[in-house]
Amino acid sequence: MSLIVTGTIGIDTIHAPTGQAESVLGGSCTYFAAAASFFTPVRLVAVVGDDFPDTYRSVLTAFKGIDLAGLETRQGSKTFRWGGKYLANMNSRETLFTELGVLAEAPPKVPAAFADSKYVFLANMHPGNQAGILEQLPKRTLSVADTMDLWINIANDDLRKLMTKIDGLVLNYDEAELFTGKANSVTAGREILKMGPRFVVVKKGEHGALLVHKDGIAAFPAYPTENVIDPTGAGDTFAGGMMGSIASTGASGSDPGSFDSIRRSMAHATVTASFTIEEFSLGRLQKLSRAQIDERYNEYAAMTRLT
Amino acid sequence: MSLIVTGTIGIDTIHAPTGQAESVLGGSCTYFAAAASFFTPVRLVAVVGDDFPDTYRSVLTAFKGIDLAGLETRQGSKTFRWGGKYLANMNSRETLFTELGVLAEAPPKVPAAFADSKYVFLANMHPGNQAGILEQLPKRTLSVADTMDLWINIANDDLRKLMTKIDGLVLNYDEAELFTGKANSVTAGREILKMGPRFVVVKKGEHGALLVHKDGIAAFPAYPTENVIDPTGAGDTFAGGMMGSIASTGASGSDPGSFDSIRRSMAHATVTASFTIEEFSLGRLQKLSRAQIDERYNEYAAMTRLT
Repeated sequence: MSLIVTGTIGIDTIHAPTGQAESVLGGSCTYFAAAASFFTPVRLVAVVGDDFPDTYRSVLTAFKGIDLAGLETRQGSKTFRWGGKYLANMNSRETLFTELGVLAEAPPKVPAAFADSKYVFLANMHPGNQAGILEQLPKRTLSVADTMDLWINIANDDLRKLMTKIDGLVLNYDEAELFTGKANSVTAGREILKMGPRFVVVKKGEHGALLVHKDGIAAFPAYPTENVIDPTGAGDTFAGGMMGSIASTGASGSDPGSFDSIRRSMAHATVTASFTIEEFSLGRLQKLSRAQIDERYNEYAAMTRLT
Repeated sequence: MSLIVTGTIGIDTIHAPTGQAESVLGGSCTYFAAAASFFTPVRLVAVVGDDFPDTYRSVLTAFKGIDLAGLETRQGSKTFRWGGKYLANMNSRETLFTELGVLAEAPPKVPAAFADSKYVFLANMHPGNQAGILEQLPKRTLSVADTMDLWINIANDDLRKLMTKIDGLVLNYDEAELFTGKANSVTAGREILKMGPRFVVVKKGEHGALLVHKDGIAAFPAYPTENVIDPTGAGDTFAGGMMGSIASTGASGSDPGSFDSIRRSMAHATVTASFTIEEFSLGRLQKLSRAQIDERYNEYAAMTRLT
């Protein structure tokens, strides 16, 4: 079934206790599409500037199953660039610089060939732009958005409007508290459900993820790993694994947004995200195989069973 | 099989955003024994002063299966008292006051009738005293200790000595980092294994718990709940559920410290701890039934299954 993602493609500079990466491929859309492609074909909609290196385009095309027909290269514009620094414990980071480039211009458009997409993921970008993309996808059966503290702070009304139009929201633990004023993730999740979505996935990084769905609650620990090189993109990879898994198993007639559908996808999401952090940028995902995901899934299942 | 616990019995004063509790029953031993008693009989070894109220003794005796033959009432001495204040998010707390009382005096002694105990839990107290108790229990087949930041800071050598004598250590997330200098819980756990124990349980409060065992790793989310009134004692309740579950299922000949044995006990530990936080002091545990634990266990199993 057809999965589409829109969001950012960026050029990242990462400083971490584990090393540095200068001007590497990044962006919410990038990690999402790479992750989802292990489960299902994925349509990418995003804009880069004319400075976007061919080598990075080749990285994307090397992922079988990413359709780049919606990747616009805008002449005279610059690709989004972001620099971040991770602190000693790798759990908190600070932004070193942000060069918006194309992100300050008109949003990407959905190509006619993608208009029939059924599964929609609106990766992190301005909620007004996310809503604009949604309107171009009338055949959608499941729409899920990510967001961040920036939009909660400066585009709260647009974000709340978006809540009435989507099936699910994916966001970080501290963002859920910021958005709702509730520190308890279950309570924060329920508050967001009142705004419109049928489900909320609260991402907690090394502490796992929580699903608050109108029909139930589910909780997942992260895959316990010592090999953390760069957490950048873990959340977008999580979302890609989740939506990819849902799209790949969605039978016609079944409800892709049901509690069981979302719940089942979260273990795949967790396991896929655990690979991204093992190298800078898409380093690990470029070498990853579906067999390795399945192998770690089985390991994760053994680590989390109760009996 | 015979389970014994030693640690503190205290009188707590709790200030929390959810309310206040003045001079209520608390202490590591208290929560542990109450929790364990739902799974197996438990022998309690601790000291209180002559100010220990009869009503609190009655609370303990009301838990069927707690053997108080090892509870010493020391004339002329004062019961340990502690006051703590929880901050808005309920995850961090500050100590308001500590009156050591009997804790600054001679440690409790193991009564002759308890000397044949097989399962030993050394709840939080000075590691030198924990080691002293251990020497009085020559028939032990599984010994597990808890500790805290105070002992890591002021009795590090004693704590490291204790590590060479126990099978397992239970401690909080931030304490594991303090003890080892490693922020990653898996890495911190492995560092502690090098000091002697066969396994380490890292407690992460609302984020669950991690088992790092020489034969494997297991991860558990907390039971997701909105009803958090007072987190005091949750960790000791967790340990009580864990050791009680192990002692109740331990068949002669099987290894109670094996990866599978510890792993299986952690879901019971998680679920039992989730009740303690629903009221101040032992309020919720006093009304709890084994059937309610089993019911929530089934709920937890449904919330955490992968498929």
